[in-house]
Amino acid sequence: MVKKEKANNKVYKGVVEEIKNKIVSGELKKGQKLPPKRELAEKLSVSRASVREAMRALEVIGFIESKQGAGNYIKESFEDVLIEPLSMMFMLQQINAEEISELRRGLELEAAVLAAERADEEDILKLEHLIKEMSVTENEDRNVILDKEFHYTIAKASKNKMFLNILNVISELIDNFIKGIRKEILSKEENKERLLKVHSEIALAIRERNKMNVYKAMEKHCTIINENILLRTKKE
Amino acid sequence: MVKKEKANNKVYKGVVEEIKNKIVSGELKKGQKLPPKRELAEKLSVSRASVREAMRALEVIGFIESKQGAGNYIKESFEDVLIEPLSMMFMLQQINAEEISELRRGLELEAAVLAAERADEEDILKLEHLIKEMSVTENEDRNVILDKEFHYTIAKASKNKMFLNILNVISELIDNFIKGIRKEILSKEENKERLLKVHSEIALAIRERNKMNVYKAMEKHCTIINENILLRTKKE
Repeated sequence: MVKKEKANNKVYKGVVEEIKNKIVSGELKKGQKLPPKRELAEKLSVSRASVREAMRALEVIGFIESKQGAGNYIKESFEDVLIEPLSMMFMLQQINAEEISELRRGLELEAAVLAAERADEEDILKLEHLIKEMSVTENEDRNVILDKEFHYTIAKASKNKMFLNILNVISELIDNFIKGIRKEILSKEENKERLLKVHSEIALAIRERNKMNVYKAMEKHCTIINENILLRTKKE
Repeated sequence: MVKKEKANNKVYKGVVEEIKNKIVSGELKKGQKLPPKRELAEKLSVSRASVREAMRALEVIGFIESKQGAGNYIKESFEDVLIEPLSMMFMLQQINAEEISELRRGLELEAAVLAAERADEEDILKLEHLIKEMSVTENEDRNVILDKEFHYTIAKASKNKMFLNILNVISELIDNFIKGIRKEILSKEENKERLLKVHSEIALAIRERNKMNVYKAMEKHCTIINENILLRTKKE
């Protein structure tokens, strides 16, 4: 477990540690209710205000949720737990659009390779269905949704929650910080055809469980996207 | 910017939002001091207790630090900002050692490919120097340090802070949750030679700026590591 230095005046940190310890020991599991504030305060010999601060902190990190009048619970799902810290890093310009695109590339490539190995029939049919719709729709907003679903399905087919979580966060970061970029890329005539082609290549290679071809097709895909993102961010 | 639903009783969340807005607008930059609690409380018409809760929360996420008697500051560096959420996810068994290893593979491969393009002379000399020491040292603890430094240098040579940050976090997670695994892997006779060979191949390929060879050598490296991690986790 990750140790943090405890300052004397940081009573609430002791409470956060205590809850973490209960998680490590298995005493607290996802979805479970936390002990009442009063009980925690007594047990740790701290004020209820310190317990409340600790709860707030854990809520902001996204690990507990407080249900009105019903107490605090360990969350069931942690899918959005990385959004806040990554968004803040982005906002403070510790990271830029190019770095995000490169990270996306690394993860998309590996997720696609894993998907070629692990996708089940349902995943593959979903990909093929999405491509069919992409090839006929003229609606640009619909195309954005289909594109997102396509990549979400690949991440899901990797059967690795880390890839799914982080790629989702990156997708949100791109939407939030490079406004309208997805629509811009998908609407350009020269991109439309190229993207439809690589999307089809990716789906086919996953169907054929051909890792090398998946890698190559996804590499082409990322090159198209990253070219466009660079073009946009250099204009700004 | 990422919107969160505001419950009426979550006054502190409004304060967190306000600080985030100041970051987005550029009013607050890294290393800067936050306005005094009193001032924020007045401006937002909330209690000082709510402002304090917001500060605690931002501190737990790792974005501000409070300096004894000197107020709250936006941090200078956010390198450790992902450790807490990822550790918690791990602890709550949302992710397992295999998933972490796969994520590491995806990131190491891409970081190494970027390093082949971007490593400067200093990075390359460092890698070569580390290999020279690895090939002669008999001390197992020293070998663990050299191995970590080798991979840290590649991540750094990618010149992408996202790879550096996330790979560091993964490295810490592995150390924390698969205790002693690094030493175990590096101490096995059959691994020693194979690892020294792939480390040398990686460094050489970076020196020659040969992306394909870097990829292949790093792939071999990850296979050795992941085999060993799987062996261990299946025993447990």
